[in-house]
Amino acid sequence: MENFVFHNPTKLVFGKGTVEKIGEYLKKDGIRKVLMLYGGGSIKKNGVYEKVVRSLHDNGIEKVEVSGVRPNPVLSKVHEAIQVARENNVEAILAVGGGSVVDSAKAIAAGFYYDGDIWDAFIGKYNVKKALPLYVILTMSATGTEMNGNAVVTNEKTQEKFYFSSKHVYPVLSIVDPTTQYSLPANQVVYGAIDAISHVMEYYFDVAGSDLIDRIDEGIIKTLMETTEVILKEPENYEARANFCLATTLALNGLTGLGTTGGDWSSHELEHAISAFNPDIAHGAGLAIVFPAWMSYVKEQISEKLIKFGKNVFGMSGEFSPDDVINQLKSWYKKIGAPVTLKEVGINKEDIEKITQLANKHAPFGTVKELKMEDIRKIYEIAYE
Amino acid sequence: MENFVFHNPTKLVFGKGTVEKIGEYLKKDGIRKVLMLYGGGSIKKNGVYEKVVRSLHDNGIEKVEVSGVRPNPVLSKVHEAIQVARENNVEAILAVGGGSVVDSAKAIAAGFYYDGDIWDAFIGKYNVKKALPLYVILTMSATGTEMNGNAVVTNEKTQEKFYFSSKHVYPVLSIVDPTTQYSLPANQVVYGAIDAISHVMEYYFDVAGSDLIDRIDEGIIKTLMETTEVILKEPENYEARANFCLATTLALNGLTGLGTTGGDWSSHELEHAISAFNPDIAHGAGLAIVFPAWMSYVKEQISEKLIKFGKNVFGMSGEFSPDDVINQLKSWYKKIGAPVTLKEVGINKEDIEKITQLANKHAPFGTVKELKMEDIRKIYEIAYE
Repeated sequence: MENFVFHNPTKLVFGKGTVEKIGEYLKKDGIRKVLMLYGGGSIKKNGVYEKVVRSLHDNGIEKVEVSGVRPNPVLSKVHEAIQVARENNVEAILAVGGGSVVDSAKAIAAGFYYDGDIWDAFIGKYNVKKALPLYVILTMSATGTEMNGNAVVTNEKTQEKFYFSSKHVYPVLSIVDPTTQYSLPANQVVYGAIDAISHVMEYYFDVAGSDLIDRIDEGIIKTLMETTEVILKEPENYEARANFCLATTLALNGLTGLGTTGGDWSSHELEHAISAFNPDIAHGAGLAIVFPAWMSYVKEQISEKLIKFGKNVFGMSGEFSPDDVINQLKSWYKKIGAPVTLKEVGINKEDIEKITQLANKHAPFGTVKELKMEDIRKIYEIAYE
Repeated sequence: MENFVFHNPTKLVFGKGTVEKIGEYLKKDGIRKVLMLYGGGSIKKNGVYEKVVRSLHDNGIEKVEVSGVRPNPVLSKVHEAIQVARENNVEAILAVGGGSVVDSAKAIAAGFYYDGDIWDAFIGKYNVKKALPLYVILTMSATGTEMNGNAVVTNEKTQEKFYFSSKHVYPVLSIVDPTTQYSLPANQVVYGAIDAISHVMEYYFDVAGSDLIDRIDEGIIKTLMETTEVILKEPENYEARANFCLATTLALNGLTGLGTTGGDWSSHELEHAISAFNPDIAHGAGLAIVFPAWMSYVKEQISEKLIKFGKNVFGMSGEFSPDDVINQLKSWYKKIGAPVTLKEVGINKEDIEKITQLANKHAPFGTVKELKMEDIRKIYEIAYE
């Protein structure tokens, strides 16, 4: 087990009927005016918008709205919202939505106090020193952003999908009400599950770790797999939703990384290039394609872990190989309706070179095996069909 | 799954060679003078005292010492230290030791700002409003106190062993260096393991919960059982120590209680009366005796959970009963050298009435079954031999 420092100050408010408490929490913290950020309007259909607006009103909290944050969120929207936040002297950001909204809100919160372009934080030119307090109402569980200090945004001009991390952008408070997710389309549940599973796997297949956290990882992944299948059949099964939501939060709130070297994260780098190349490809879909391909490419290095994964997650027994485990994972992804090849999502063979170039901007990356351009190209080739 | 609010602001610094960083951390937080609290002097034998003193000195931090905190810590020592803290205008408490030292430090930190007797916090007469910041160097992993807001202290005048909880006494920072525990006597490892396992079981056998947290609970308990056996044979096995230490912290930092009604805690109430009656009985020893007896008494209510526990923790298969699982737990306690009856620790049959009276001061308690005086007496009778 590697040494570590764990510090996660986010207050997590979890359960039925918690959305309407947002106004009280803000008031208790002395916040009088927020920038309310949301996406394409699904929160107006599922009743969340109305509950939030009423709760703000009842507690005397002013708001200014910015909407239209899209999946694979873009930098221009972040710039727009920073402008609005400054012009209106807001005291906090209230993000109401899924990972895209929350990640954008983190960039806005940090950008509020930064004189340059907040993209500097994503490219390592600015180390975030201060941010507006961030409050979250999560309406789609997947990325774990509600309880960590990470944000991923795409710079549409450069086609770069980069991230930054800072202790200053951990949400002060995140509300997760599983019932708000009853109306999510099935593919969002599927991609959310794959995203969260992938977060845990990035740590599980790290070169270091511990039996304890491996067991916790296995428990989180098993729960995500079981509950995804239940939710696809019964979208309003509260227990399944609640287990799913909590599992996605724990997948990336620091717990699963304790005692590792920090995770491998190659598959995420490889995926970011795919969805930067084509923003219509969901992050979870890209991960379903690229993670098993990465596993195949480094299977020598992770063979023991793959066998352990097969036993403890899939309940495999008797004689089986690392390849069998990878195939089992792909089968499960197919079963829940996810793509497992680049071809399926409309990527042509010729595009592989372009995507390789995009991914190579961050290379070398990976701890299990340090990936350079040639490795990256080979993994995309494995992932092709 | 029940609704919950989770908020744990403690920074956990974990690993080899972390003790000597305490001075830097205090300095960074602007602390200039601490009350350094410790126990019977084992930290002078294992080198921790010297490392701490040097680190404080190197960072220009003044200290005033109070030592002699004993296992099953007592209120009079808390009173003494509050006096010293006030006379010396300390800015923080630095607890160096195990659960007894840290719990005492929490009472001191809260008592510093309270005009009355801090015992009022333990008997529900005072709701803690403020406390000195608390820094911890943990030298014995067991209670989880390094990452929660609970403290247990015995009022030796009234023979009451009570607890209080407050968000104000979460440690600001806790350092856990597993190597400092290499020299712990075997029985402290055994009782620490039983204490931590019992914390998880209090939540596991709650009337509510979730598959996800059950899996995490099972993983923590299995890890504690495996690593205890390794440590008893190889006290300087770092991986075993590190897994053990982290498991005890996670056992009671809030994680294992997520989505429960708050745990049952009857066994802890029943144990506190035993070690209040005879402070020479270690908390872990008392729990090894009383928890299986409680399980037997309420086995109708927890039969399904006992079967799940047997399967997933002990790997039991085929036909087995709840009683078999309870016996398996007792066997494991015996295997590692713990007592499993009151008789073994020198309690006489006549003492049962006195202990029942002590426990009854907090009755009724328990969520699985609300225990009244008659129930309490019966459980002690089951635990007798």
